[in-house]
Amino acid sequence: MTAQPRSLPERRRDTEHRLNHDVDVWVATASVDGAPYLVPLSFDWDGEALFLATPTNSPTGRNLAATRSVRLGLGHTRDVAIIDGQVEIFEIDALPRERGDRFAERTGFDPRL
Amino acid sequence: MTAQPRSLPERRRDTEHRLNHDVDVWVATASVDGAPYLVPLSFDWDGEALFLATPTNSPTGRNLAATRSVRLGLGHTRDVAIIDGQVEIFEIDALPRERGDRFAERTGFDPRL
Repeated sequence: MTAQPRSLPERRRDTEHRLNHDVDVWVATASVDGAPYLVPLSFDWDGEALFLATPTNSPTGRNLAATRSVRLGLGHTRDVAIIDGQVEIFEIDALPRERGDRFAERTGFDPRL
Repeated sequence: MTAQPRSLPERRRDTEHRLNHDVDVWVATASVDGAPYLVPLSFDWDGEALFLATPTNSPTGRNLAATRSVRLGLGHTRDVAIIDGQVEIFEIDALPRERGDRFAERTGFDPRL
């Protein structure tokens, strides 16, 4: 915690730093009938979108496919960026190779294997 | 991250330590029609239940009242305890005074004010 709230440019810079350098993000989803789900996942960021990998039949995967809605918590509880997102789904076989390579390098986890 | 998974007794001890000493927890809720919500909140723990305070008409308050369901993330993304909970609602005026005092002391935030 800092004594003074950060300025908007500082907050933007800090958030971009987290998007570029953090590995994990909190991923909140919900079933269509309102059951909340929450799990930390590794992510990649290409400057426009966050990429997450989860099995199609995991709770997160099922919720994302059904609602196309996600809320992300980046950082720690006292220094957090909250991101509401629309979901686009890439089947693992349709993922561009460079995209998969980049994800695996950043996170240490290759979802294609 | 540790090289070896912790034993069940270690995990229990670590989780109880967080319940007794951490101040913030990630709170995931959902609307009845499946819109996820996520926010960090301060909490208290009395050995049996977590206590959270949020306005009745906040997104979290509305979701909790409607679904009575919550999923909590305690700790950091690489050392986390996930808690699925059933919700009991205390109106602020019906809260026992000692309970409110304890919450305010632990979190530095008095929801009665």
